[in-house]
Amino acid sequence: MKEKERGILPQKIKGFRDIDSDLNQLRWNIINKAKEVYKSYGFEQLDTPILEYADTLGKYMPDKESVEEGIYSFQNPEKEPVYLKNGEEMRDENENVIMENHFLALRYDLTAPLSRFYAEKLWKEYLRGNIKDGKAPLFRRYQFGQVFRYELKLTPGRFREFWQLDFDTIGTADVSADAEVCIILADALEKIGLKRKTYIVKVNNRKILKGFLQAIGINSENDEQNILRIIDKFDKIGFENVKKELMEGRTDDSGSEIKGIGMAKDTVEKKIYNEGIEELEKMHFIWKNLNFSEERIIFDCILVRGMAYYTGPIFEVESLQTYKDKKGRKRNVGSICGGGRYDNLVKNLLGIKVPATGASIGVDRLSELLTLTKQVPEKEIGSVFITVFDDELMPEYQKIARSLREKNIKTEIFYGFQRNLKKQLKYADRKNSPIAIMLGSNELEKGIVTVKDLRMGRKMQNIKDKKIWREKVQFQVKREKLIEKVLELLKY
Amino acid sequence: MKEKERGILPQKIKGFRDIDSDLNQLRWNIINKAKEVYKSYGFEQLDTPILEYADTLGKYMPDKESVEEGIYSFQNPEKEPVYLKNGEEMRDENENVIMENHFLALRYDLTAPLSRFYAEKLWKEYLRGNIKDGKAPLFRRYQFGQVFRYELKLTPGRFREFWQLDFDTIGTADVSADAEVCIILADALEKIGLKRKTYIVKVNNRKILKGFLQAIGINSENDEQNILRIIDKFDKIGFENVKKELMEGRTDDSGSEIKGIGMAKDTVEKKIYNEGIEELEKMHFIWKNLNFSEERIIFDCILVRGMAYYTGPIFEVESLQTYKDKKGRKRNVGSICGGGRYDNLVKNLLGIKVPATGASIGVDRLSELLTLTKQVPEKEIGSVFITVFDDELMPEYQKIARSLREKNIKTEIFYGFQRNLKKQLKYADRKNSPIAIMLGSNELEKGIVTVKDLRMGRKMQNIKDKKIWREKVQFQVKREKLIEKVLELLKY
Repeated sequence: MKEKERGILPQKIKGFRDIDSDLNQLRWNIINKAKEVYKSYGFEQLDTPILEYADTLGKYMPDKESVEEGIYSFQNPEKEPVYLKNGEEMRDENENVIMENHFLALRYDLTAPLSRFYAEKLWKEYLRGNIKDGKAPLFRRYQFGQVFRYELKLTPGRFREFWQLDFDTIGTADVSADAEVCIILADALEKIGLKRKTYIVKVNNRKILKGFLQAIGINSENDEQNILRIIDKFDKIGFENVKKELMEGRTDDSGSEIKGIGMAKDTVEKKIYNEGIEELEKMHFIWKNLNFSEERIIFDCILVRGMAYYTGPIFEVESLQTYKDKKGRKRNVGSICGGGRYDNLVKNLLGIKVPATGASIGVDRLSELLTLTKQVPEKEIGSVFITVFDDELMPEYQKIARSLREKNIKTEIFYGFQRNLKKQLKYADRKNSPIAIMLGSNELEKGIVTVKDLRMGRKMQNIKDKKIWREKVQFQVKREKLIEKVLELLKY
Repeated sequence: MKEKERGILPQKIKGFRDIDSDLNQLRWNIINKAKEVYKSYGFEQLDTPILEYADTLGKYMPDKESVEEGIYSFQNPEKEPVYLKNGEEMRDENENVIMENHFLALRYDLTAPLSRFYAEKLWKEYLRGNIKDGKAPLFRRYQFGQVFRYELKLTPGRFREFWQLDFDTIGTADVSADAEVCIILADALEKIGLKRKTYIVKVNNRKILKGFLQAIGINSENDEQNILRIIDKFDKIGFENVKKELMEGRTDDSGSEIKGIGMAKDTVEKKIYNEGIEELEKMHFIWKNLNFSEERIIFDCILVRGMAYYTGPIFEVESLQTYKDKKGRKRNVGSICGGGRYDNLVKNLLGIKVPATGASIGVDRLSELLTLTKQVPEKEIGSVFITVFDDELMPEYQKIARSLREKNIKTEIFYGFQRNLKKQLKYADRKNSPIAIMLGSNELEKGIVTVKDLRMGRKMQNIKDKKIWREKVQFQVKREKLIEKVLELLKY
């Protein structure tokens, strides 16, 4: 059996995709619209490489124990020095530099490489002691591109290569920047075409979630749930009422009594009025001030987010639109954006605290949502199509094509092997061509060209009347009137 | 010594780059302009993954013996079946499917993955015997993105990750498509901004270069040079005169005698009038017909191109512009585009001959050329800049920013740690901000805002007259007139 020759199968890697022109149109519409919004907030474009040293990316992948899990990593073919913490090369007992094939990794997000970029820029200044904790320069950038995750389980809509569309502010501890992140997400999604109330920006704060409960000694699952339930009302009832419900209870607007859970005033005042809540209050005030109500941004106390590097406010955008799958079941694509504050990510590389915040639109997930809910931009009109019957006439075809292009009319000459008109027009149809131009030696002699209005033809498919057909769909024009006619036909 | 702790240095991999906003502006100007030209010829966008099975990419790298040389390759963490040539899984003596960690590779160009894409699409049809040699469907696509080469020697301007900008026609044997490739390259470069005569599209045909000389039994270096020298005159003197010079010689337009090299008529007629020359003749006729003279496209008989997959016409664009390096030496960036016909690339994956041709703009090399010769687009105007003095006023700053953005004015609020005006304005300057807005609690009370025209300020740097300065550069406006004033200032 084993003697059989191996084959090379023409296939892409499982979890990877080819993106056709329709999906590209959708993808670039998303990127360009979001980019415009990001730029309107002062973000500039920075691109980092696809490949990085694995150790600079760190071990932050969701639900993964080590950096080797969940990412594509391999050893650099080139041997390079091993470094000490102070940036000097590590040497052996004979003073020879220790060389290794360092591990490289395909980036799993755009945030970790950004932190590497920022740390790399300041690294020399840092070694000289010129940069201090919390005093790092402000930098705001956007970036879009592929990221890679070695997902073991590939469920539908999950890919190993997918596009992210990030914006980040590095060097700010001000939670106003976090509030702005949520506003930008809402603005960008609406610019892309999502209607109000079809998405929601959900916000939480890791400091509340992680630190707080342990800090006040809550260990029972039940107490934890009760407290989270009350905190979750924050954006509806406000901070003061949350406090009351945690303590003795309150009377609501309708006069109903709402029971409190009886926490001591001391505990609530001292511990709950902590940084997390304070930060959310500040953010909430900015949103209120700009009329970003619960319609667009809500507090969600059970929001977690996967990445381990988040330290403060965290964000997620959930699509509220449903669609029916093949079996008629109601489905939701779920999360389409995510982000948060990551005050320690740069620190791990640079040694000083550099507060930062940002978020990312999941381009592929959003494309999927727009496709499934039929919110795809209209297919771009294709090129005017020049059919080819006679190789001898190629110079003529070329001339016509060039004169059309000079008028900014996209024009394609058919270079395929078929000389059959029907098959050529089928190709033109697939490419959404509006007009076909036909020219044989016979017509050349007479100084005429046959023009077929393909869009009209599609509309009038069932019309049998040859006279109408000849008037409206397929007709002859004088060679010198061709450009004029094409321009006229393209207008409607 | 060895006990010292290892450090993680914040650095990118050697040969990889971060691309800042200026270089991105240049890069995307190139991509968008070329894309527009490609689209005007009927190419549609197709994207393939960054990562592919190494065996599908083939062994075509210039000057490399094996696929492992010159590329980044590693084993898939996932075990997958080994396949036979007919697409079935390979099994061992116990009928168990043989599993392996297949080699993956970062793409080294965009042509090999395109061939994989095309072959993958037709693979099932091929196994059913539905597709025949030379009868493959026409497909025209453009693509831009990163490619990766593991270059051992990194000279200046050479990178291991760089961008290509390709267009290809698959399924055409017609050399008119090759002629069109050259025209598209010229059109795209001029659209990007290169002036006529600052670049030249050079064309050759592998069939002439490789096959011909051996075929007619030329072995001496001297004879080879003589013949190539004469063939090189092809675009100046035409095919008939080339033939004469290879045989008995001729009299030129000025009446001078040009000696022939005395080849037998029989050899010349039978062998030289071969496919290669015929193809170039056909291409030449199309160029002449469209007024693409030697100014833009020339025949270059010593042009080779590195990729091993080319089979017919080959193309290269050389920049004719020089610049001075740091030591004042005249330099030339050399080749900025390349391409050719590759009739066998799909065949290796699909089993049938699928003729194809295309070319690629080297985005990074072209960016470098434009930078070195100072043909960079003007730096985009940055955002209106809102200085931050008082954290309490953040909601006000946010309101102003939002009302400006609603008028489509890019606006950035300063979130950095500095409260020092000078330092904030330095940041605004770096980002090419046109206007700064300043608002303290004092001004808020009075209902006014201070506006600084940063562009005017840069122009009037040396003006000492405070009155003029207050009129032209830094002045106060009523809060309700702010938007109007900003719009007015942005107009000039």
